Amino acid sequence: MNESINLKWLDKMAFEGEVNGFKIMLDASADVGGTEQGPRPKPMMMVALAGCTAMDVISILNKMRVEVDHFNVNVEGELTEEHPKQFIAMHITYEFKGKELPMDKLEKAVQLSQDKYCGVSATYRKVMKLTHEIKIL
Amino acid sequence: MNESINLKWLDKMAFEGEVNGFKIMLDASADVGGTEQGPRPKPMMMVALAGCTAMDVISILNKMRVEVDHFNVNVEGELTEEHPKQFIAMHITYEFKGKELPMDKLEKAVQLSQDKYCGVSATYRKVMKLTHEIKIL
Repeated sequence: MNESINLKWLDKMAFEGEVNGFKIMLDASADVGGTEQGPRPKPMMMVALAGCTAMDVISILNKMRVEVDHFNVNVEGELTEEHPKQFIAMHITYEFKGKELPMDKLEKAVQLSQDKYCGVSATYRKVMKLTHEIKIL
Repeated sequence: MNESINLKWLDKMAFEGEVNGFKIMLDASADVGGTEQGPRPKPMMMVALAGCTAMDVISILNKMRVEVDHFNVNVEGELTEEHPKQFIAMHITYEFKGKELPMDKLEKAVQLSQDKYCGVSATYRKVMKLTHEIKIL
């Protein structure tokens, strides 16, 4: 095993995670006994996806010498109604701002991440509907 | 879609996420152009898993009136060598400390989470080897 994280129980539903030497709080919402000290665990699956593909894309665009002023990755997810509640779909929106951005290169960078580099996308695609779009703002 | 997160590019490989109203930093390691301002994206998949099952277990033990003094969830993961690098296995270690802890109830709580409640476990189990163990310290 080549990766590891740790999660320490603090109190009620609050946990302190340690990831690559950084601390992260997780907590449940008040209606299920939490004290709102941190985000819920499940959306972290979407954070993993967004981060993985966002880093690919910014790094590929950098190699292509495409300069962007703003770059934002939004992920929406759909959970099942029944337990165990799990994601059945995620949609990634890549938003760019910049001067005369070349849409073909943005598309190429996103496609390379989705097809070749992003391991989180590769994993999720096997078990849910994974879609994406690109917006130039 | 009923869940969403956002990730905003800051500089180089640094991103600021927003999850349930909380901010989370993500960054790459220095050897791939990052500035080490936050954890890597991929281990967030393990954080999602640990948090999901940890909250189930502590909540079930609470209903069973089992009092634990310390509770810790460790997740180890194995990535493929080839791109796209993805998890092929994860191992969860549930660690408990407390006075005369009933192993059968700890096992029951963990099993309920793994079989019935934890949607992250249910998702990952479809695409990787997912194992666990319980330790009383």
